[in-house]
Amino acid sequence: MINYPGGVRRKQTATSSSHSHRGKSLEEDINQTNEYYLVSDRAVIHKKPTPVQIVQVNYPKRSAAVITEAYFQQPSTTDYNGLYKEKHIDFEAKQTKNETSIPLANFHEHQVEHMESIQKHGGICFVIIRFTVHDETFLLPLKHLLKYWDQQIKGGRKSIPYAYIEEHGYLIPFKYQARVDYLEIIDQLYF
Amino acid sequence: MINYPGGVRRKQTATSSSHSHRGKSLEEDINQTNEYYLVSDRAVIHKKPTPVQIVQVNYPKRSAAVITEAYFQQPSTTDYNGLYKEKHIDFEAKQTKNETSIPLANFHEHQVEHMESIQKHGGICFVIIRFTVHDETFLLPLKHLLKYWDQQIKGGRKSIPYAYIEEHGYLIPFKYQARVDYLEIIDQLYF
Repeated sequence: MINYPGGVRRKQTATSSSHSHRGKSLEEDINQTNEYYLVSDRAVIHKKPTPVQIVQVNYPKRSAAVITEAYFQQPSTTDYNGLYKEKHIDFEAKQTKNETSIPLANFHEHQVEHMESIQKHGGICFVIIRFTVHDETFLLPLKHLLKYWDQQIKGGRKSIPYAYIEEHGYLIPFKYQARVDYLEIIDQLYF
Repeated sequence: MINYPGGVRRKQTATSSSHSHRGKSLEEDINQTNEYYLVSDRAVIHKKPTPVQIVQVNYPKRSAAVITEAYFQQPSTTDYNGLYKEKHIDFEAKQTKNETSIPLANFHEHQVEHMESIQKHGGICFVIIRFTVHDETFLLPLKHLLKYWDQQIKGGRKSIPYAYIEEHGYLIPFKYQARVDYLEIIDQLYF
């Protein structure tokens, strides 16, 4: 048994190798990583709640309010942001089952505009991309996403090739406590 | 008529004086201010979506998914964060109808812990408090909230007096475009 911060205990098995995150979603892995960063006081990074437009709420007597009609809204910012070594951190995370590329349709125009603003105002901005087939998770600095995004607008291809990400991105190590230890890459690139 | 950024046009009337934000909620005023900061490229600050636990979703044919059962969750961070002059900005905003104090019950323990973490990691952290009776909105640096918060834990008073906030906080000017122009105070205090 390994003792994790926050009192969480996990059974260590033979499959807890580099492939043990199979089956866990990228979002779950990042949330767990952020919680580890938080309890170990390394960084303060949170996932933003899913934006929901609330239409109808019931207030039953003696119990919690129930939202009975609501709709998913398209996010206008990235899913994750926070603070690390006095710097603002901002990123989006996507996983794909594709083998050879990730479709740009995974990103919304507003998100890309937001990321450009963040970079312009001095924040650290990137995307985390997991190829589930290869069982690999990459950190790709924003400029590479922007390169393909701008090409797409001019009629270019609608996806980023796996080979490009493999060459220009950074493979994020898998660790027990920080399952997607992206700050290790950020340390190499910025600090 | 005044032309606002983003193509928004508003009728300027005699009541558009320093009291014209009466009737508008603090949240609406801050959202409008943040939008103005964003379109004028001064800062990138957003309100986080309300955290909601989604229990039941229906997927009708040929129309958008409908959330039919969900519950409000207590936020674990502040409502607003972002980036200004390369610094991480983090704050919570509350309004009260009380005349002489604001109850500390307006803030949750997790939020206060989050604000302490942000300050420790080099972010700028504060609260915005509106006294609707006085029609005044103050920026109060975090240390003053913490002072009363810690006293409360030791059995002290459960609110911050208006007189204290008037003395140690900063009155936020009301402007047409930046209705709660808190960055003017931040400029004075930090830059």
